[in-house]
Amino acid sequence: MPVNLTPPDPATLLPVPGVELGIAAAGIKKPGRRDLLVMRLAHDAEVVGVFTQNRFCAAPVTVCKAHLHADSGIRALVVNTGNANAGTGGEGLERARATCAAAARELGLEPEQVLPFSTGVILEPLPVDKIVAALPNAVADLKPDNWASAAEAIMTTDIVPKAASRRVRLGEAGFVVTGIAKGSGMIHPNMATMLSYVATDAPVSCEALEAILRHAVNQSFNCITVDGDTSTNDSCILIATGVTEAPVLMDDGDPRFVPLRDAVAAVMVELAQAIVRDGEGATKFMEVAVEGGRDEAECKQIAYAVARSPLVKTAFFASDPNLGRILAAVGYAGVDDLDVDRVRLWLGDVLVAEHGGRAASYREEDGRRVMAAPEIRVRIALGRGPAAATVWTCDFSYDYVKINAEYRT
Amino acid sequence: MPVNLTPPDPATLLPVPGVELGIAAAGIKKPGRRDLLVMRLAHDAEVVGVFTQNRFCAAPVTVCKAHLHADSGIRALVVNTGNANAGTGGEGLERARATCAAAARELGLEPEQVLPFSTGVILEPLPVDKIVAALPNAVADLKPDNWASAAEAIMTTDIVPKAASRRVRLGEAGFVVTGIAKGSGMIHPNMATMLSYVATDAPVSCEALEAILRHAVNQSFNCITVDGDTSTNDSCILIATGVTEAPVLMDDGDPRFVPLRDAVAAVMVELAQAIVRDGEGATKFMEVAVEGGRDEAECKQIAYAVARSPLVKTAFFASDPNLGRILAAVGYAGVDDLDVDRVRLWLGDVLVAEHGGRAASYREEDGRRVMAAPEIRVRIALGRGPAAATVWTCDFSYDYVKINAEYRT
Repeated sequence: MPVNLTPPDPATLLPVPGVELGIAAAGIKKPGRRDLLVMRLAHDAEVVGVFTQNRFCAAPVTVCKAHLHADSGIRALVVNTGNANAGTGGEGLERARATCAAAARELGLEPEQVLPFSTGVILEPLPVDKIVAALPNAVADLKPDNWASAAEAIMTTDIVPKAASRRVRLGEAGFVVTGIAKGSGMIHPNMATMLSYVATDAPVSCEALEAILRHAVNQSFNCITVDGDTSTNDSCILIATGVTEAPVLMDDGDPRFVPLRDAVAAVMVELAQAIVRDGEGATKFMEVAVEGGRDEAECKQIAYAVARSPLVKTAFFASDPNLGRILAAVGYAGVDDLDVDRVRLWLGDVLVAEHGGRAASYREEDGRRVMAAPEIRVRIALGRGPAAATVWTCDFSYDYVKINAEYRT
Repeated sequence: MPVNLTPPDPATLLPVPGVELGIAAAGIKKPGRRDLLVMRLAHDAEVVGVFTQNRFCAAPVTVCKAHLHADSGIRALVVNTGNANAGTGGEGLERARATCAAAARELGLEPEQVLPFSTGVILEPLPVDKIVAALPNAVADLKPDNWASAAEAIMTTDIVPKAASRRVRLGEAGFVVTGIAKGSGMIHPNMATMLSYVATDAPVSCEALEAILRHAVNQSFNCITVDGDTSTNDSCILIATGVTEAPVLMDDGDPRFVPLRDAVAAVMVELAQAIVRDGEGATKFMEVAVEGGRDEAECKQIAYAVARSPLVKTAFFASDPNLGRILAAVGYAGVDDLDVDRVRLWLGDVLVAEHGGRAASYREEDGRRVMAAPEIRVRIALGRGPAAATVWTCDFSYDYVKINAEYRT
C-alpha cells in the first residue's frame, strides 16, 4: 500500500502552454492497457535531460542522447511501458529509431526531433509494430489537459500515478511547472528507475535550463532509494516551451531564475517522494537526514548506507526499533575515520544513541511509538563538520519480494 | 530451508590436539539455551585473527584486538550468543573485559590471555552476570571432541550448525585442521556477520599463520554476501596449537606451507559456503563467477553488484530467468569504461547474452531449466583482461523478510 499517497486530482494539474499529451493502447504487455504516451511540444521549446549512468543503458537512452546532441529542436516525446528495450543490442537501437521515425511521420517532423523512452521488462525485443500501429490514436488524443492520464499511461509496477504542479508568481506575470513521473522498483539514484517529464511555459535558455535541471535532480531524484538497483532506462526530461510574451531567461542573474528553479525542484521533490511512497511493497516512508559531516558526499554516503540496508528496512517494516542495525549501517558506510563516539542518532524526536552506545534517556516504548507511525524521520549527527544530506526511502516488506518474484508472470 | 546443507557428522570432525571446547547454558536470550562456548588452548598456541571493518565495531572486537596486540599468549576464547555487546560504549568494553577476567579466574590465566566474542542483538547491555555464572559449567565441559556441540552453541539465526575438518597428509606425519562458524544474516565481506574459529595442531610461526589466514579469508569469507550488511562483530580466528613433535613452520619457504594453507582455505571455503547455504530465508545457492576483468578488484566489484541486487535475488527465488536484471547490475557496478558489447553472460551452461543483448541461441526454456535447480552458477565474461573472481550468495525470499522483521520477538 502506498504511504500517504493518492492519485493526483486532475483539476490541480495545470496545463503547460506549448505541451499537448496524447495516450493510446498499444497492447505491449497487456491488451487494452493504455501504455503509449506522445507529448507534442511548441516550436521553440528547449529540452534538456539527464539519464541513467548504468553501462547497460537502454537503446532509447542512447537515441535520446544522440537526438538531444543533434540540436535539431526536439518537438515530440514517445513513451511506452511494458518493455524497456534494454539489453537489446543493435536491433534495439533500430527499433527505438523506428519509433521516432513513425512518430515523426505522424507529426510532420524529422526523426531527430523525437525522443523515445521505454520502461518495463529488460532483454526482450521491443514490439515496435504495436507501437507504430497505436501512434495515430495517441496523436488524435493530443490535448493540453491530459497530464493525469499521461501519469497513468507511463506506470509499470506503480500503484498510484504521480504528478505535481506549481505556479510561479512573478508580479502579475508568472509561469506554470507541471510534471509526471513513474517508478517504484529498481530505484536508486544516478538515476532511480524512473521516467520523469517536467515542463514549464517559461522561456529559458538551454544553459539556464540545464542548470535548473541539475539542481532540481540533485535535490530530488538523486535523494531516493527503494532497493539500491540503478536501472538501465532512467530519464528525466525538463522542457521549457517559452509560449509566453516574456523575454528569455538567459542565466542565473535573471531575478526569475531562483523562483523558477525552486518551483521545478519542488515538483521534482514531490514526484521523487511519490516514487518512494509507492515503492514496491512499501508500508512506511522514511527520511534519513545526516548532518555534521565534512562534506555533502560523506553525508549522502552514510544516509544511503542506512537507507538501502535490508536489515534496517525489514526492522522498519516490523515497526521494531532495532536501532543497532542503523548504527551498524553508519559504521560500514565507508567513512573510515568516523569517530563513533561523536555520532548521535535520533528516531523522530527521540535521542537513541550517543557516546558509542544507547542514550541513557532512551526508552524502548519511545522508540516503538515513533516506529509505529507511517512516516519516520531518522536523524544522524556525525559531529565532524557543517555539511548535511537527506535521503528518502521506504521499508522492505513481504510484498517487495512478492512483486519482484512474480514480476513477469 | 538451507540449500544442500546438513548438520556435520560429529564423527567427521577431527579433534585438534591442544584445543578443548566446553559449552554451557547461560540463558542470555532464552532460558536453557546452550549459548556459551569456552575454548582452552595449549600453552604455546599461536593465535591470529581478522575482524570487522565496521566503524561501530563491537566491544569484544576492540578487546580482542588489544589482547592479541599485547602478545601475552592467548590461552582461551569465550563466545556468547544472544547479545552482540555492540553499540554499548564504555560500559560494553567493561563488560567484555569482565568476561575475560572471570574466564581467567576459572582457568588460572591472566585476563589478557582470553579473547571475548559476542553475537546477537545490538545496542543492548551484555548480561555479563549470566555469563560469569555459567562459566564454571562450560569449563567443566571442556573436552577435545566437542566441535559439533561448539558449532551449535555459537548459532544465532542459523538453522544448521557449521563445521568442517581436513587432514593434511605429509609423508607419515601430518596435521589436522578443524573449524566452526556461525552466521546467516548481516552477511557481507570485510567480514561477513560471522564468527569463525579454525584450529590446527601444526606448529606455525605467527607470521606464517597470518599469511595463511589472509589467504584463506580472501578465498572464503570475503567472497560471500547474504544481504550486503557488514556486521559490527565479525571475527575469524586461526589457531595453531603446535602440539606435535614437528619443527615450527616458519614461512612460505617451508614445503608444508602450501598444503597447510590450502587445507585451512578449504575448511574456510566450506564454512563460508555453509553460511550462504544457510542464509536467512535461502532457497537457492548461487555462484557468481566473473572472468576476463582487468584485475581481481573489478571482477569482485561486478560479482558483488550482481550478488547483492535484491532484484536479481528475488528473480532467483522465483526461478524466473529475468536475466536483464543481472545485466543491469553488471552495468551499474561502477566499472565506468566497461564495453557492454563485449560482455557475455551464462546461466549454468546456457549462453544468455552477448553483443549487448540476448544471445541468438538463447531459449527461455533453457533458462528456466537452469533456474529450477537449487544451485545455480552465473558466469560473466567481461572480455577486457585476464583476472577473475567468484562470489557466493543466496536468493531473497519471503522468509528473509519474516526472519528479520521478527528477529527480536
